[in-house]
Amino acid sequence: MAVLSPSRRLRRTPFSDGVEAAGVKAYTVYNRMLLPSVFESVEADYRHLKDHVQVWDVAVERQVELRGPDAGRLMQMLTPRDLRRMLPGQCYYVPIVDETGGMLNDPVAVKLSEDRWWISIADSDLLLWVKGIANGYRLDVLVDEPDISPLAIQGPKADDLMARVFGDRIRDIRFFKFDMFQFMDKDLAIARSGYSKQGGFEIYVDGAEIGMPLWNALFDAGEDLNVRAGCPNGIERIEAGLLSYGNDMTDDNTPHECGLGRFCDTQTAIGCIGRDALLRVTKEGPVQEIRPISIDGDAVGPCDRPWPIFAGGRRVGQVTSAAWSPDFSTNVSIGMVRMTHWDPGAPLEVETPDGMRPAMVQESFWL
Amino acid sequence: MAVLSPSRRLRRTPFSDGVEAAGVKAYTVYNRMLLPSVFESVEADYRHLKDHVQVWDVAVERQVELRGPDAGRLMQMLTPRDLRRMLPGQCYYVPIVDETGGMLNDPVAVKLSEDRWWISIADSDLLLWVKGIANGYRLDVLVDEPDISPLAIQGPKADDLMARVFGDRIRDIRFFKFDMFQFMDKDLAIARSGYSKQGGFEIYVDGAEIGMPLWNALFDAGEDLNVRAGCPNGIERIEAGLLSYGNDMTDDNTPHECGLGRFCDTQTAIGCIGRDALLRVTKEGPVQEIRPISIDGDAVGPCDRPWPIFAGGRRVGQVTSAAWSPDFSTNVSIGMVRMTHWDPGAPLEVETPDGMRPAMVQESFWL
Repeated sequence: MAVLSPSRRLRRTPFSDGVEAAGVKAYTVYNRMLLPSVFESVEADYRHLKDHVQVWDVAVERQVELRGPDAGRLMQMLTPRDLRRMLPGQCYYVPIVDETGGMLNDPVAVKLSEDRWWISIADSDLLLWVKGIANGYRLDVLVDEPDISPLAIQGPKADDLMARVFGDRIRDIRFFKFDMFQFMDKDLAIARSGYSKQGGFEIYVDGAEIGMPLWNALFDAGEDLNVRAGCPNGIERIEAGLLSYGNDMTDDNTPHECGLGRFCDTQTAIGCIGRDALLRVTKEGPVQEIRPISIDGDAVGPCDRPWPIFAGGRRVGQVTSAAWSPDFSTNVSIGMVRMTHWDPGAPLEVETPDGMRPAMVQESFWL
Repeated sequence: MAVLSPSRRLRRTPFSDGVEAAGVKAYTVYNRMLLPSVFESVEADYRHLKDHVQVWDVAVERQVELRGPDAGRLMQMLTPRDLRRMLPGQCYYVPIVDETGGMLNDPVAVKLSEDRWWISIADSDLLLWVKGIANGYRLDVLVDEPDISPLAIQGPKADDLMARVFGDRIRDIRFFKFDMFQFMDKDLAIARSGYSKQGGFEIYVDGAEIGMPLWNALFDAGEDLNVRAGCPNGIERIEAGLLSYGNDMTDDNTPHECGLGRFCDTQTAIGCIGRDALLRVTKEGPVQEIRPISIDGDAVGPCDRPWPIFAGGRRVGQVTSAAWSPDFSTNVSIGMVRMTHWDPGAPLEVETPDGMRPAMVQESFWL
């Protein structure tokens, strides 16, 4: 495998020194920033994540901050999800769409107050779209990327580890809610969220200078919990059906195709730029949709390009993420399948780098 | 060095099969796509580039296409460079700025016709800014990313190699002009341009299916010219003062700070979104500017984060790209220096990973 050439353009994070000291073996690049992808091995990291607790440098989840009297209006222009009942202290998963209903990002919106929001983004320069819209519509809002670097604590022992550093009040945070905590006299938003199904938190670390002190405090507090450095795990996230923007969907796809139709309130999300384009697809439904797909045979290689899906000799979709699952003893994958073949049990063939493999649409994701 | 984990999100190019067959050893990621960074070694690749001819997969230079009656108006809104005299068939290097005059990209604009433009972008999702502006201002223009993948032919023997594949008419293209040529019955725009100072061309390959046939045709035609696969070279581009967006400048910087003031016609570029913000800096000049800086001592490591520059114990700038130059027997670098210390000959100190090093502002870049 080729190495990654370092340069300033591939930005380091406030936790990079800790990540290197922990022996990171591989990276990916996400929002022009380094995202660790392997420490011991993908399989060993997976086992450890499911059994213990990990600290993840996910500073690549850059924030787009909206600030000012039009912040709420702008936020609603970006997404077809109805935000009228969202309260400060809540996090919403929000598809972001362009004027054609194409997905530009699938971030988590964090409502800090009526006139202040963070958008915790997936891998695209959403900042540029939001700035362009704010400028073009002459909205009274400031849009920028604040110096916020999320650190995720994930795994079944996440509550115990976090309580040792932030106190037992951390246990009271409910799913997709956040509360404010202090570390080194800094106020930090901490949410119960994260890109795994093992449970845990995301700390919105404000300012680079407390990055390594916080990293070290977590490792010092969790030695007997077997805490380790980790990262979003390619096997676990596919088992759990956690989508990856750029992998499982692009701006070619509508939210409905991505199985995100339940987040599209096209009747009530007044002001959303992509609303008109999505009205019809909301009514009729999409003609292709994301599905969990098992792929037979031994372990398939990493899915570095779309793998075509065939049925009866005709192309009916593509697989975009795949990995061997030790816990389910099959290749788990995420694919986009046409409606003629998306029912559970539908027999398919997937063209992998090792040749054609039998495959099958599953009833649900594996978790 | 850590390896790069493959995934669909880090897009392959139409030439990736050729790049792999040529033995690529390292990549960087650029516009969420694979950009080769090392074949034999950075030093060997450098020597070969200066002596022979190389074929570069620069498909990462994605195109933003503007099409429609408002295409020209939109193009002028994006840049402070006056485009009124630009003719179809010309390429212009254009700083792109936001409403505060901050650099969003430093691409080459290609004028195909009065109502059709390509913007051949550096590393940021400029598409999202352009789409946001077009939508917000309700312009009559379509904005998208066409299936165009540039392939660069660089080095002193570039004219000879290209003439063998496209005919002697290729020699008549002047610098930063383009003309249309045919390959496999496809019309291709070919410009005399590229990210080196060794001379050469960029072929705007239209459609993935002719990618490998063209790659192979170039290698077949150039065997006796010692043609090899190559890539933008970290040493050569610093010697030549070719800036890199994300490395040497970010959206924090104005074009003037980047030495691009000559491309800012703030008096006449009517309609440019960042014009007002840049008017004053055009008059007064910037307080910091990019400079060529030599760094004493043996070879410094790769510049993966800004290296602070000091003078008399005070911080006066930062180095953002650096490499050992075999031809000039010194470390060559690009840095941003405050006006108090930017004159040629000014003695500085640079804090490298190996400690403080004496350094000096140069009269000009090394080429």
